[in-house]
Amino acid sequence: MSYRIVGDWGTSRLRLFRIEAGHVVARVEAAGIGALEDTPEATLRTAIAPWRADGEPQAITLCGMVGSRNGWIEVPYAACPADVAGWAAEAGRIALDGVPVAILAGLACTAPSGGPDVMRGEETQLFGAIARDPVLRTGRHRIALPGTHSKWATIEDGRIVAFQTFFTGELFALLRDRSTLLRAAARSDADPAAEQAGFAHGLTRAGDGDLLLGALFEARSAQLIEGRSPDWAAGYLSGLLIGREIAELAPTAGETVGLIGDPALCDRYARALAARGIDTNLLDGDACVLAGLALMETDR
Amino acid sequence: MSYRIVGDWGTSRLRLFRIEAGHVVARVEAAGIGALEDTPEATLRTAIAPWRADGEPQAITLCGMVGSRNGWIEVPYAACPADVAGWAAEAGRIALDGVPVAILAGLACTAPSGGPDVMRGEETQLFGAIARDPVLRTGRHRIALPGTHSKWATIEDGRIVAFQTFFTGELFALLRDRSTLLRAAARSDADPAAEQAGFAHGLTRAGDGDLLLGALFEARSAQLIEGRSPDWAAGYLSGLLIGREIAELAPTAGETVGLIGDPALCDRYARALAARGIDTNLLDGDACVLAGLALMETDR
Repeated sequence: MSYRIVGDWGTSRLRLFRIEAGHVVARVEAAGIGALEDTPEATLRTAIAPWRADGEPQAITLCGMVGSRNGWIEVPYAACPADVAGWAAEAGRIALDGVPVAILAGLACTAPSGGPDVMRGEETQLFGAIARDPVLRTGRHRIALPGTHSKWATIEDGRIVAFQTFFTGELFALLRDRSTLLRAAARSDADPAAEQAGFAHGLTRAGDGDLLLGALFEARSAQLIEGRSPDWAAGYLSGLLIGREIAELAPTAGETVGLIGDPALCDRYARALAARGIDTNLLDGDACVLAGLALMETDR
Repeated sequence: MSYRIVGDWGTSRLRLFRIEAGHVVARVEAAGIGALEDTPEATLRTAIAPWRADGEPQAITLCGMVGSRNGWIEVPYAACPADVAGWAAEAGRIALDGVPVAILAGLACTAPSGGPDVMRGEETQLFGAIARDPVLRTGRHRIALPGTHSKWATIEDGRIVAFQTFFTGELFALLRDRSTLLRAAARSDADPAAEQAGFAHGLTRAGDGDLLLGALFEARSAQLIEGRSPDWAAGYLSGLLIGREIAELAPTAGETVGLIGDPALCDRYARALAARGIDTNLLDGDACVLAGLALMETDR
């Protein structure tokens, strides 16, 4: 049976899917662009060799860091606002042993903070989310992708008009693991009361309580003065940073924000958003990326 | 001639001064509380042994982390608002081979961010600054102590009424050395244009431009999109964080802020404050700590 291969090739791993008649029939994983032990081409060839034993794929479609400067080929970022056709047209095209390979473009925009911003991989999930849900094709919507570098995208009439990257996840890991804010290693950051204390500071918008750099140090002072544990401090910092990320974007009560990402992390964002009166809608990240990759199939 | 010994014993080093008739006649350095290879008592005994060869000191006065839980003895924090007499009364008293030793208390307060906050060592510089300058003994003044953990203190009628610690210096070092924001090691963070770009974002108070977590990521995007160098990103991050620290405290134009600390770092703070129309007054940190330590001398 004829088949295609699609894949999400990020910094930490490559996830490949074998698609027959629109369905995933097999999966395989290999090294991410940041962890390659061979060229991207050789890595891909090795990963899909078992599938090629019963015939060549019709085509291969890849998204993510594979299109970055350190990837297989550098595919320029498509500019926002971007609709699906304009974005898909920017894909880079090469071949693997004669099989056509499309490498999807990332997106670049001027972020709400006023500076340049970029994504590679998340745009495929976002266009997939739009393809899966007709509601997203009219009006204005926001979708957040929590993670090491969280992205918040604004969708208008089915186009991605802008996005903002937040350094929240990496910053939390640095503060938890490398800073003096925790006086000993934390075993958990899941203390609900600590999280709420963090939300309370982080979600404050402007005014006198708006002291992020000041509030960070409170994780340490609370251990010295109030006998708080490192676990409390970790939960507080997680809540503070997530709350602050949300406050910086100031979503409005009544809005429904879509969430794509690790379910436990999305759950934490959903609690912070609920504390501001905002509903959330958890989207299936795998289904979104597959739908986005399918947008490049010519025979769909 | 009779003499006293005073010392500032912080985390990274011990600085000892031999005082005769109110003047520093000798100095010596030894290991900080965070770098001890022996007990605090033995470390001090070794450091001052040469001075004791011609007679015992009348007294020893120490400030800083020597009074912390990991120091020589734990001296409880004095509470703010604190005047010099109340603070001095909280000193811990022990002896070294019969010589009386006073270990000055740190201060605790409820910070402007609403949480608990503490200092150990900076209070001695602040009370020293107040002792040196009659202007600080009436009205309201602010003194900033830039450093790994910057402190901003509010002085009213010669009392320290509150302070706020900012995690700025440690955060900058983490972002420069340990994060993915710089795509290669920076050689310098002294690019004036990069600093100004950071100030421009950091000094923005609230409103739509108030995106610290968002603006952090711009250090990376600017390298990817605008061809900026790691040195530019380091200068931008330094300016952004210092600007943000200042914006969180919102000093008002016309105010004069005292600065105590490393002169190059204080100069950077002075530039950021000048960009908000605020004058600064660089205080001599060594003179301030010596004046503060002298406040414990009974025969002054």
